[in-house]
Amino acid sequence: MRLSKPLPPNSTIGILGGGQLGRMLSLAAARLGLKCHIYAPEADSPAFQVSAAHTVASYEDEAALARFAKQVDVVTYEFENVPATTAVFLDSRVPLYPGVKALAIAQDRLAEKTFLAGEGFEVAPFAAVDSLADLETALAHIGRPAILKTRRFGYDGKGQVKILEGTSPGEAFEAIGGVPAILEGFVAFEREISVIAARGMDRSVAVYDVPENVHRNHILHTSTVPAMISPETTRQAQHIGDTIVSVLDYVGVIGIEMFVTADGLVVNELAPRVHNSGHWTMDACLVSQFEQHVRAISGWAIGSPASHSDVVMTNLIGDDVNRWGDLSEEPNTAIHLYGKSEARPGRKMGHINRLTPRQS
Amino acid sequence: MRLSKPLPPNSTIGILGGGQLGRMLSLAAARLGLKCHIYAPEADSPAFQVSAAHTVASYEDEAALARFAKQVDVVTYEFENVPATTAVFLDSRVPLYPGVKALAIAQDRLAEKTFLAGEGFEVAPFAAVDSLADLETALAHIGRPAILKTRRFGYDGKGQVKILEGTSPGEAFEAIGGVPAILEGFVAFEREISVIAARGMDRSVAVYDVPENVHRNHILHTSTVPAMISPETTRQAQHIGDTIVSVLDYVGVIGIEMFVTADGLVVNELAPRVHNSGHWTMDACLVSQFEQHVRAISGWAIGSPASHSDVVMTNLIGDDVNRWGDLSEEPNTAIHLYGKSEARPGRKMGHINRLTPRQS
Repeated sequence: MRLSKPLPPNSTIGILGGGQLGRMLSLAAARLGLKCHIYAPEADSPAFQVSAAHTVASYEDEAALARFAKQVDVVTYEFENVPATTAVFLDSRVPLYPGVKALAIAQDRLAEKTFLAGEGFEVAPFAAVDSLADLETALAHIGRPAILKTRRFGYDGKGQVKILEGTSPGEAFEAIGGVPAILEGFVAFEREISVIAARGMDRSVAVYDVPENVHRNHILHTSTVPAMISPETTRQAQHIGDTIVSVLDYVGVIGIEMFVTADGLVVNELAPRVHNSGHWTMDACLVSQFEQHVRAISGWAIGSPASHSDVVMTNLIGDDVNRWGDLSEEPNTAIHLYGKSEARPGRKMGHINRLTPRQS
Repeated sequence: MRLSKPLPPNSTIGILGGGQLGRMLSLAAARLGLKCHIYAPEADSPAFQVSAAHTVASYEDEAALARFAKQVDVVTYEFENVPATTAVFLDSRVPLYPGVKALAIAQDRLAEKTFLAGEGFEVAPFAAVDSLADLETALAHIGRPAILKTRRFGYDGKGQVKILEGTSPGEAFEAIGGVPAILEGFVAFEREISVIAARGMDRSVAVYDVPENVHRNHILHTSTVPAMISPETTRQAQHIGDTIVSVLDYVGVIGIEMFVTADGLVVNELAPRVHNSGHWTMDACLVSQFEQHVRAISGWAIGSPASHSDVVMTNLIGDDVNRWGDLSEEPNTAIHLYGKSEARPGRKMGHINRLTPRQS
């Protein structure tokens, strides 16, 4: 369903997923006088702590989903792996944004690459792999090194394996569980950047400054704004963002990961949601990506993406969060902690934004 | 009680009062990974919508207060009219900040003026009024025009009456209910300003830029930062703030209202809590007054009060909130709505911060 008019204050936004992204969406919604109802399977979801209502139920529980749909005015989600049946079920009952189409594309790496290539964007060479025979054929075309990735449910490096000169295709296919997959050629990139774009129901688009991203162990470590790229590359990256949200008739915030190579930009991945590489907007912009997403899916005008400071966002992973005392004393540093009870290795516990004001 | 060490993330802050100030404190605490438990008598308190837990009970309900004290790691409040017995009861069970002493001074206009005058600050001429005879004596000393104010429970112009040339003292005393009162001489001021200061447990003090305040119908209408006052007056005002929090051995944020007169600064009123004239800090500073208060009462280092933009804060009173659509489209404007269900006349429904970035 579509929203017929902007949601007035005191309306309720339903959010699928109760992690840090849902939590920060809920905090942004509250500033605008909008309530949030979080739907998540985990009883200790961090977003529950800051939301007016929550439901603990599985994404397959249609009775719970139907109740949820009746209690909210619009639905959005904090993660792209919402089951397609869940999205379709809700979309038939209540306005759902960014929507079923963007989810379908983003949650299947093959559909994603096919969409991007079809729109004329540069992507890594790729081929569908449904069997070991497919993998061997694909390797013959694409060459090594390459990366074998599951089509679905991959994030933060999970569900993927590198295929180097000596790697056995059989072992690689087994390592990812023999599920439907995609082989991607290796992209020799100079930098990783991303584009955080927002599109409103009035079709207006806002694209934030371009962050440069550094990963550690496949998890985002820092986003530095602005990226060390030319104005022309910045324009191209932002133009790709603008084009993608327009082609998808998208409503909300999207994160688009790209590689900067000697031959130009290569589009790597879409995340149809607020994105970790956009967390710097919370302190360097008047309108954060979270407020922007809430504005868009509520039918409000989207805001300016202008920033007032340069910034480096650093994720606090696992035990990093124990440095909160020292970090809280750092000048020009905003600290954001997610209310997670246990600091497991590799778990995103918070982030900091270190700002460089453009004048004092 | 006093806190023995900084509260780690996931600790719980108890807040007395569930209005917009409690709500914005809770949102700020959430960003730092701290939970809030709101205690308020009203079942539809706006702060409940954004807090991990809440208690609906009267401030006199000692059983509920005792349960609350066991569930939180520190207690603060969003309003100065917390009953003294409530504050003392809680303070004997759990660390309470800013504390019993600041409350006692701020909730009694006579104690407040006596404290301020005793510390050597200029205040309006004043006298205690417990009877009509007192009032007549006081009027003979102070002259007219003057303002008769109840000693307790006054806010936004409630509990006060002007005494002009023709006013009958008997009628004036009756108008305020014949309760213990204070007569204050009229101050011919050029401007109203306020100081928002914060003091941490390590005794460090941060004072924000000085806003200039305009009231309408005794309710704050705008706060403009910076105030149109000289650097010397700014320094004096900030010094008064610094002195007051130090003398009171204060922990947390305080709002201090002052008059700018031809003869210098006159201190009018203390609010031992976050203050409406500090709402501009939410968008013009990296560390808002709300985060600052949470940091202070949690034993964290207080942050820099530096601002990156000039700003005009405008309250949305009653029906003003219905302009949310237009306001949300204004550039450089942040909108904050409080989640109140009914827009009664005179009720604070939200505020906007219109920023002027110091460079583009």
